[in-house]
Amino acid sequence: MDPPPGTPVNLPEGPAHAAIDIGTNSIHLLVARSPAPGRLEVLAQEKEVVRLGHGGSDMRRLDPDAIERGIAALHRFRQVADIWDADITAVATSAVREAENHDEFTSRARDEAGIEVEVISGVEEARLIHLGALHALPVYEERLFVVDIGGGSTELVVGQREEVLEARSLKLGAIRLTDRFFSDEPITKSMVKDCRRYVRSFLEPTARELVTLSPEVAAGCSGTIETLAAMALARRGDDPGRNLGNLSVTASEIAAVVDEIVSAPTAKERAKLPGMEAKRADIIVAGAIILEQVLAALDVDELRISTFALREGVLLDQATHRGGGPRHHLTDLRRASTVHLADALDPDRAHSDHLTALALQLFDDTADVHGLDDAYRELLEAAGLLHNVGLFISHSAHHKHSYYVIRHSEHLLGFTDHEIELIAQIARYHRKSAPKDKHPEWAGLRSADRRAVAVLAGLLRVAIGLDRSHAGAIAEVRATVDESSGRLDVVAAAADGADPSLELYSADQRKDLLADALGLDVEISLGA
Amino acid sequence: MDPPPGTPVNLPEGPAHAAIDIGTNSIHLLVARSPAPGRLEVLAQEKEVVRLGHGGSDMRRLDPDAIERGIAALHRFRQVADIWDADITAVATSAVREAENHDEFTSRARDEAGIEVEVISGVEEARLIHLGALHALPVYEERLFVVDIGGGSTELVVGQREEVLEARSLKLGAIRLTDRFFSDEPITKSMVKDCRRYVRSFLEPTARELVTLSPEVAAGCSGTIETLAAMALARRGDDPGRNLGNLSVTASEIAAVVDEIVSAPTAKERAKLPGMEAKRADIIVAGAIILEQVLAALDVDELRISTFALREGVLLDQATHRGGGPRHHLTDLRRASTVHLADALDPDRAHSDHLTALALQLFDDTADVHGLDDAYRELLEAAGLLHNVGLFISHSAHHKHSYYVIRHSEHLLGFTDHEIELIAQIARYHRKSAPKDKHPEWAGLRSADRRAVAVLAGLLRVAIGLDRSHAGAIAEVRATVDESSGRLDVVAAAADGADPSLELYSADQRKDLLADALGLDVEISLGA
Repeated sequence: MDPPPGTPVNLPEGPAHAAIDIGTNSIHLLVARSPAPGRLEVLAQEKEVVRLGHGGSDMRRLDPDAIERGIAALHRFRQVADIWDADITAVATSAVREAENHDEFTSRARDEAGIEVEVISGVEEARLIHLGALHALPVYEERLFVVDIGGGSTELVVGQREEVLEARSLKLGAIRLTDRFFSDEPITKSMVKDCRRYVRSFLEPTARELVTLSPEVAAGCSGTIETLAAMALARRGDDPGRNLGNLSVTASEIAAVVDEIVSAPTAKERAKLPGMEAKRADIIVAGAIILEQVLAALDVDELRISTFALREGVLLDQATHRGGGPRHHLTDLRRASTVHLADALDPDRAHSDHLTALALQLFDDTADVHGLDDAYRELLEAAGLLHNVGLFISHSAHHKHSYYVIRHSEHLLGFTDHEIELIAQIARYHRKSAPKDKHPEWAGLRSADRRAVAVLAGLLRVAIGLDRSHAGAIAEVRATVDESSGRLDVVAAAADGADPSLELYSADQRKDLLADALGLDVEISLGA
Repeated sequence: MDPPPGTPVNLPEGPAHAAIDIGTNSIHLLVARSPAPGRLEVLAQEKEVVRLGHGGSDMRRLDPDAIERGIAALHRFRQVADIWDADITAVATSAVREAENHDEFTSRARDEAGIEVEVISGVEEARLIHLGALHALPVYEERLFVVDIGGGSTELVVGQREEVLEARSLKLGAIRLTDRFFSDEPITKSMVKDCRRYVRSFLEPTARELVTLSPEVAAGCSGTIETLAAMALARRGDDPGRNLGNLSVTASEIAAVVDEIVSAPTAKERAKLPGMEAKRADIIVAGAIILEQVLAALDVDELRISTFALREGVLLDQATHRGGGPRHHLTDLRRASTVHLADALDPDRAHSDHLTALALQLFDDTADVHGLDDAYRELLEAAGLLHNVGLFISHSAHHKHSYYVIRHSEHLLGFTDHEIELIAQIARYHRKSAPKDKHPEWAGLRSADRRAVAVLAGLLRVAIGLDRSHAGAIAEVRATVDESSGRLDVVAAAADGADPSLELYSADQRKDLLADALGLDVEISLGA
């Protein structure tokens, strides 16, 4: 007898990890262990079609019923993950990302299902999908184009090896376009024509940019594309239920499937088509049109099906982080994307590099007092490298412009939305006003995060003071804490031949936030 | 007998223009006519020391008494300007710019004194000061450094001919630093030392950047510097009351004056120093330290006194605009700075240039319906060139990022703050949601401006649709209005060999805002 779904039969070795992917159409659970970076051994998979994003209003709100369905699914998934004693990483995409009331959903998920939901950006979503597809297909060395059609958005990525060359998230989704073009049955030729033109017009600028990257191989993933591929299999006389891994379908096979779909005017009729997944029959017309137009715009003749997508990408990404040992620097992707943004916008990179090194040294020397772990060290490093990225907008209030640029940049990859908020706030508080309750972003943080931002911005301010002349006049810094006297001694060593008096003065002028955050007197002096 | 101040004796030929400069320490009126670009014939000058920016709290609010004093001065100045029948341009700087309640001041100025106050940015202020100094001194061909020390801020500019190479506004001012370092009397050596170090530290990064531009000549202007120069004259045994125009003072003369000032511990004693302006004796210590540190940081040996500053710059700038004839393009400076920003941040300048030309053609063809003048045409041109400057932050929501970048950029010169707000809003509404009352920036506009933004953004949307492929598929466009049928016909001509179907479709999809704003049906079609 088969065991009930979700029950372990032979518990494999090593810890299990769970990824939950909260999409617009459905929520998926994947439980797996990762015996080595890049490998996944699947322990359990679950899916519930919750239609979080359904119901007019251009996805601006999650309605109460949708939230109930979502939380109930998360509650069940938590129970499944617990069977395997798996830690859970839950990511939410388009429907939650765009909803004005997404806090309601994430706080209920935390309180009722014990699940911390990270809302990820469209570009981060695209990156993780690419990572998933990369590990599902033998295309590591080739330049890979990946398309993932969701309920609310479509992700398009071109990458090679682990490097993402361009990642885009478009607000084209099977549910979104069904609401817009196919809310009435039966569907007509003119509705299909309108939808096609709309998608074509929407895709045009993105496709134009992506084709310049000359992808060699195209891959597709997720429910819509898997359904279309299964239908193509059925038309071949093959078993549509078979494993789709590494299957290839041609653009003309997809075209034939799309014809079949748009010729069936109602969901009930479409549900009977060979290979169709019944629960998707209502939204497949829009999904099929999106794929057809993507293939045309990107000039794709053959599409390979990747059975790995976002949730696999989440687990693979985590395994990479875990495999990286202690994170004394930002892990590769995070660091690379941070440096990329700093290179593009910071007018004095040598200054930012130098003061960031000073700030990290102060972080390490004060670890016993602040008690913040390596994850926060990464945030400090990123904030140090990025604290001046707002300068190109204007010198005046550039700390606020740095906040804006960091918060909204699509170039920062590998961070969660929450981590980006923290980096942006640390950078924002690198000068001028200390954090205040009347600053709404600050007020929105939980208290542990507020303290961490104050400590890290405090360290950054002192380090910035220590390179006031942008000349590396202070070569090194060390800090020692004397808890009995409540004093933090920061001892700076001057570079050969440098006059460090401006640096010492400036650091002293900038020490108050750190002193307040740590509850210590801070003394800055010159040492050997 | 001399006529009373402000009374015309011999009315010179030509229209008179008035500039009012609303500073932190004082408000100045200048009435002049400009017989030729670059020339001013002064008709009247007035000054009132109102201390708008006085009173703690880091200049965050204008207190009620200060507002009263300011409005009363404006009321009197309006009467003087009326004698000459002069139109008035009033600009407000640091104190008003930084005050959270500046709307209160500007709306009372409008309602009670009939004066429209433009709050200008620090960088725009610096540009206008440079323009003033350039015309006061025979230094047109040389690379000129100008410093202007105000009550709330210090402007530093390096330029050559009419081109500003770098302009900065620092929150260092005679009143601001007096409040911070010298609020108690008598002043002590340690207070002076603290202030010096603070100013040095504050100046350092800006000075470092400006010296790389290798200025050849240094000029200084406004009350603080004129007072210090008059004191230097007195030390020479010269008449401190004589005209300071084109006077040169050396850094060592200034150093001697500064010594004299900081050695007099109270304002009462300082007021007696030869050459001192009594009303300035309380704030001259901070002002003197700022100048001393600026000269040191910029390595200036000799400073030439410019008797032209901000208000002269305002009138000269206007004369340039008036002399430019009909403004079919942005006037040179505005256009140059707009193009500079677009070049830096827009990834497809050819597209922006092309669609902007199409939008301007539509503007001209619909002039009778929208009734907007050439000033608005300039705003449309700037918004067209800049509509995509937010793209580098992220594709998602890039229209909002464009708003942010335009609104806060220090690179746009020659526009008023209000004009920049309008450009930013036109760019912001180039896609996605139409203007709505719940958008706070939109809600903050007066109704005539709302309509203008809607019309101009509506024109821009259609033009953007007409270059959807970024390929110039639509070579030209013409519009004709049939008022009787309430219809606007937009007829597009395809480029040779181009397929314009996507463009026609996309423009049609984007026409609703224009149709609503003009109250016309908009029809888009292909013509010869």
